[in-house]
Amino acid sequence: MKNFKCAVLGATGVAGQQFIEACSGHPWFTISGLYASEKSAGKKYCDACTWHQESEIEPRLASMVVKDVAKIEGDLAHYDIIFSALPGEIAREAEEKCAKQKPVISTTSAFRYDEDVPILIPEVNAEHAKLIERQKERGWKGFVVPGPNCTTVGLAVSLKPIYDEFGIKNVFMTSMQALSGAGYPGVPSLDIVDNIVPYIAKEEDKVQKETVKILGAPRGKDVKAAAFAVSCTCTRANVRDGHTETVFVETEKPCSPEDYRAAVGRFNERMKKEFGDLPSAPKMSIIVRDEENRPQPRRDRDAGGGMSTTVGRIRKDDVFRNGIKYVVLSHNTKKGAAKGEILVAEYLVKKGYIK
Amino acid sequence: MKNFKCAVLGATGVAGQQFIEACSGHPWFTISGLYASEKSAGKKYCDACTWHQESEIEPRLASMVVKDVAKIEGDLAHYDIIFSALPGEIAREAEEKCAKQKPVISTTSAFRYDEDVPILIPEVNAEHAKLIERQKERGWKGFVVPGPNCTTVGLAVSLKPIYDEFGIKNVFMTSMQALSGAGYPGVPSLDIVDNIVPYIAKEEDKVQKETVKILGAPRGKDVKAAAFAVSCTCTRANVRDGHTETVFVETEKPCSPEDYRAAVGRFNERMKKEFGDLPSAPKMSIIVRDEENRPQPRRDRDAGGGMSTTVGRIRKDDVFRNGIKYVVLSHNTKKGAAKGEILVAEYLVKKGYIK
Amino acid sequence: MKNFKCAVLGATGVAGQQFIEACSGHPWFTISGLYASEKSAGKKYCDACTWHQESEIEPRLASMVVKDVAKIEGDLAHYDIIFSALPGEIAREAEEKCAKQKPVISTTSAFRYDEDVPILIPEVNAEHAKLIERQKERGWKGFVVPGPNCTTVGLAVSLKPIYDEFGIKNVFMTSMQALSGAGYPGVPSLDIVDNIVPYIAKEEDKVQKETVKILGAPRGKDVKAAAFAVSCTCTRANVRDGHTETVFVETEKPCSPEDYRAAVGRFNERMKKEFGDLPSAPKMSIIVRDEENRPQPRRDRDAGGGMSTTVGRIRKDDVFRNGIKYVVLSHNTKKGAAKGEILVAEYLVKKGYIK
Amino acid sequence: MKNFKCAVLGATGVAGQQFIEACSGHPWFTISGLYASEKSAGKKYCDACTWHQESEIEPRLASMVVKDVAKIEGDLAHYDIIFSALPGEIAREAEEKCAKQKPVISTTSAFRYDEDVPILIPEVNAEHAKLIERQKERGWKGFVVPGPNCTTVGLAVSLKPIYDEFGIKNVFMTSMQALSGAGYPGVPSLDIVDNIVPYIAKEEDKVQKETVKILGAPRGKDVKAAAFAVSCTCTRANVRDGHTETVFVETEKPCSPEDYRAAVGRFNERMKKEFGDLPSAPKMSIIVRDEENRPQPRRDRDAGGGMSTTVGRIRKDDVFRNGIKYVVLSHNTKKGAAKGEILVAEYLVKKGYIK
Repeated sequence: MKNFKCAVLGATGVAGQQFIEACSGHPWFTISGLYASEKSAGKKYCDACTWHQESEIEPRLASMVVKDVAKIEGDLAHYDIIFSALPGEIAREAEEKCAKQKPVISTTSAFRYDEDVPILIPEVNAEHAKLIERQKERGWKGFVVPGPNCTTVGLAVSLKPIYDEFGIKNVFMTSMQALSGAGYPGVPSLDIVDNIVPYIAKEEDKVQKETVKILGAPRGKDVKAAAFAVSCTCTRANVRDGHTETVFVETEKPCSPEDYRAAVGRFNERMKKEFGDLPSAPKMSIIVRDEENRPQPRRDRDAGGGMSTTVGRIRKDDVFRNGIKYVVLSHNTKKGAAKGEILVAEYLVKKGYIK
Repeated sequence: MKNFKCAVLGATGVAGQQFIEACSGHPWFTISGLYASEKSAGKKYCDACTWHQESEIEPRLASMVVKDVAKIEGDLAHYDIIFSALPGEIAREAEEKCAKQKPVISTTSAFRYDEDVPILIPEVNAEHAKLIERQKERGWKGFVVPGPNCTTVGLAVSLKPIYDEFGIKNVFMTSMQALSGAGYPGVPSLDIVDNIVPYIAKEEDKVQKETVKILGAPRGKDVKAAAFAVSCTCTRANVRDGHTETVFVETEKPCSPEDYRAAVGRFNERMKKEFGDLPSAPKMSIIVRDEENRPQPRRDRDAGGGMSTTVGRIRKDDVFRNGIKYVVLSHNTKKGAAKGEILVAEYLVKKGYIK
Repeated sequence: MKNFKCAVLGATGVAGQQFIEACSGHPWFTISGLYASEKSAGKKYCDACTWHQESEIEPRLASMVVKDVAKIEGDLAHYDIIFSALPGEIAREAEEKCAKQKPVISTTSAFRYDEDVPILIPEVNAEHAKLIERQKERGWKGFVVPGPNCTTVGLAVSLKPIYDEFGIKNVFMTSMQALSGAGYPGVPSLDIVDNIVPYIAKEEDKVQKETVKILGAPRGKDVKAAAFAVSCTCTRANVRDGHTETVFVETEKPCSPEDYRAAVGRFNERMKKEFGDLPSAPKMSIIVRDEENRPQPRRDRDAGGGMSTTVGRIRKDDVFRNGIKYVVLSHNTKKGAAKGEILVAEYLVKKGYIK
Repeated sequence: MKNFKCAVLGATGVAGQQFIEACSGHPWFTISGLYASEKSAGKKYCDACTWHQESEIEPRLASMVVKDVAKIEGDLAHYDIIFSALPGEIAREAEEKCAKQKPVISTTSAFRYDEDVPILIPEVNAEHAKLIERQKERGWKGFVVPGPNCTTVGLAVSLKPIYDEFGIKNVFMTSMQALSGAGYPGVPSLDIVDNIVPYIAKEEDKVQKETVKILGAPRGKDVKAAAFAVSCTCTRANVRDGHTETVFVETEKPCSPEDYRAAVGRFNERMKKEFGDLPSAPKMSIIVRDEENRPQPRRDRDAGGGMSTTVGRIRKDDVFRNGIKYVVLSHNTKKGAAKGEILVAEYLVKKGYIK
């Protein structure tokens, strides 16, 4: 396999650091450029950023000089892939500049809701990748593929086997989200000690909108959003990593807990076949825990290197005629962020979108 | 007002302690007997129990000798009210023994699901008190009135103004429950630090069953359960006190967030008129917070002396044609336990059921 | 008693809010002016600040218009006392401006280490108040009296009875400080969940320096620092309020645990006599807990309205020939901040320094 | 290297589980017998215990049948090493029974204070192993080697380079200990949320006694305790794993922070040479962190696979003429428990004490 040269935009922020950690030791991808705001430009990476990851920074990157993201245009020829973790305000302009020439894989929401842009989770909607072709109409040589909001990921993955086999009419979801979802410094400790904060700005809208787009069907050149509705309440819990979500699903056809378990089994088989060869793919896409008190963030978030989605407490729903309820857990800074996007890049390499 | 002599059963446990704390300085009720298991009988109260309340024990009670609950029968003539906080296994037998002669107000679930027993929350279903009359058919001179599970309380109170004015079709609820709900020693710290436990034994069944019983309509000698369904997922969060619940309600008639706010206003007015003179009634039964990040357990649990129910994040639901969603918070060891039962006793005194 | 008109400088910050909360309902002091930076000036107080206190803001103050602290000079005639909770950088200049005309009671460190400025804790060094006279040599009509660092308070108060009766040679102290000591937003939750941070900038120097100044003896016009040394290590713990400190004290004369308990008893008697009539003085200055697992921040911080110092685990030290070790707890945002300064102001009123 | 057959006593408890986890995949040691109380005997291991470790149980062990520890005598011929994690009450009798025939490596305190029993930390007092010879005088063919209390380990390791090069006169230590030190269920969450508990039963005595024994000098057939005194205060913090300790050391000779750093460098070199070939030895025995806010339990506990001791905040002490202060962190359930004992066993194999 060719070795791909990668740049990280927004490299000094927490999301950028996660790209760096996720690429560390990667068999295909090598980071060869770090970009951040003018303020950091010219500094050594280790001086420009406060490193918040568990592992230590690779020495090679620690001493790499950070460049100004505003001036990346001239450097683009040196890279095969651009990983973007830019803050919202400046992401759209910078990503567009890069996409004119190169593939951009992003954790930001800048392009997520554009019609010709897929929000890609390979296990769920790999076929949306074909929207990339449509982006050529923008006159771009490259393209943009953003990942979903970290709260959408666990929901969308866990709904996928249900949607495919039983159809979905309605979904109610309540999230208990980890502190790391707010970045750093993020949530003040005084707000969360002995407490829950039942609000995360804009989160509910994003999850409701993204879930139906991601589960939507490719229709000619478009993707048609899935025809069900999602209603969410998103809260912040005193947990470091791992978003927990309670889900109530009304299905089109009857779907018992056993039906769901069996559908997950088939889903996992298919995933293994299709993505098992990608370096960041977990052995099991969805892990079903049968203990009555799982999934738990601390015990399940690192399953599959943080790339598995864990589902538990699968029960028949007590309101819907056809429906189940369950609890799902997904690692928000691994599967739900940079490491999830690395998997997307791996998939696009395999399919020839990135060369 | 006459002064009522009260006995507390299960006085050494956490729930019993809460009765003692809630009666401290009460204008009508005086604790004159403390009962616990044989093991504690004969000891001074302060030696028999490990006190877990924030306030100090009243010296008078600290030195009171605990009696054996198995032998309470002979003492019953000395009491006007029996407050029971007995552990599940022995509650039914002991409460029955007492109810043959005296009013028993209980936090246990022993009699909750009997047809002739009301689960009383004065603000919600005061008129269920008439079931007390039916208990005479058991040959009892007294009666049993249990309170609901602590998780049911906030849900039932917050649904009441909706149910009365708009009708309810379906309810989805996810709870994030406080540690104190599990008693002491309760939840091991190793299970909850940096974690959520998405399971509480039997809790979901209780809440689903109790909510519709409490909101049910008296029909002749019976109470007919309300004709809607509730589906819950109950979780444990790293919070000391205060149960937070996210609620999605489908209503019969259109009910906008403004409609709900207005209905709460009318509800509060009515409560003030009917219960405003009871010593433990809060000034506002339901407090609506308009800040986007409330209610929060630490900031709102003590509102109204822990007896108010706080509702926030009232929004139109995104799935139901007619429906709203909101977050509700209720103090599980005050309104949801002994102090809530003290209010019940006050109400029954006012109405002449307790003399 | 005359009613004193007070201004609060830095009113929108957390420390300023604590002055406002501590003055609420105060029998002598009425807040009649709120000052903050230019940015807040002209706004209603409730719009200018994010209120972080447990109680609600008094409506009268919520609607009071905040003024620009840079322009306070012209307003000074309207106030009897200036309470300052300004951020470090601008405190010195603003406090000096005010002190030229009025008494300034401050939680900041701006003037703490000036020779003619007492760091006042009435229970410990009331007689240092006479340094106020020396400040006239600056040409001031008013004066500045700062309180100590919040970590110094519990240490100094608990050492006082030892110092007076047995003498002190050396002190080792380790603090486990509450999150609220860092203000708001303060400590990021990601830094403290499942963690301890063994460092607080400049804290150790402050405590070491202030403790010996506070326990120093007035000598002519000066205060001579106490002739013992203090060595500290200060850490941050995952606790909302209440600083816990472990203390090892080498004494001049033998001092058994019983000796210390008896000395505390005498100290409390004296305090009651001297300060018992001040509105903010607690009934017991020092509370000794005999349980083997106290003091604990959550259980003891609110003792005496947050104004008592709680000492426990008093034991003979295992290294010093003469010495004891103990654990002390003090409420960092009550006794250790604004409410402690209100007590200072009360004392200065009583002694005629403030008229 | 020969493969050693090992039995684990107390296998179902948390400490026993840690032996099992630490032996998983071990190149020399294979667990071939699991022993627990009569209650568990006859059950499959996975049914007899509630597994609390992060990793999953090895399938081979999950299905192994647990035996009654009271009847181990007849089985001893099958084992080369006995790892004991028995609860205090029964440890002494059972360990003695085993030691008559086989090497017993233990995490319990049963034999710790016997004169002919070494408390072994290879990095600190490898030469104490010769006490094993003296145990033959008991008529034993095997022997007992217990490890220290988990709180002693970090202290003893970090003091070792100081003691060897500069001598020690006095030590003051305050610990902030992790929840896992109390086993499972251990500390109730209600006791520790928003709190510190400044007391751990018997801990201070153990640490004070063990530290000087461990640093003691072999003198003929005995070990003479080191001639300095240790004074501790031990507290419990809201941290899952990793004991943090603040240490103030008075040295015989001057020892600057730089001196200590240099001594640690030499110590690490020696350790590498002597123990670098043992499978459980970390690359660095002591890691010195130069950041001003380290060590932190969450960030440093897993260094060296939980086997490194991390020291930071090394400063000149402010009280002692000759002395330093620092903060040390050690993983209480790895280096401070079973994994630390595995290292001891490895050392004893290497030295021929275990064959």
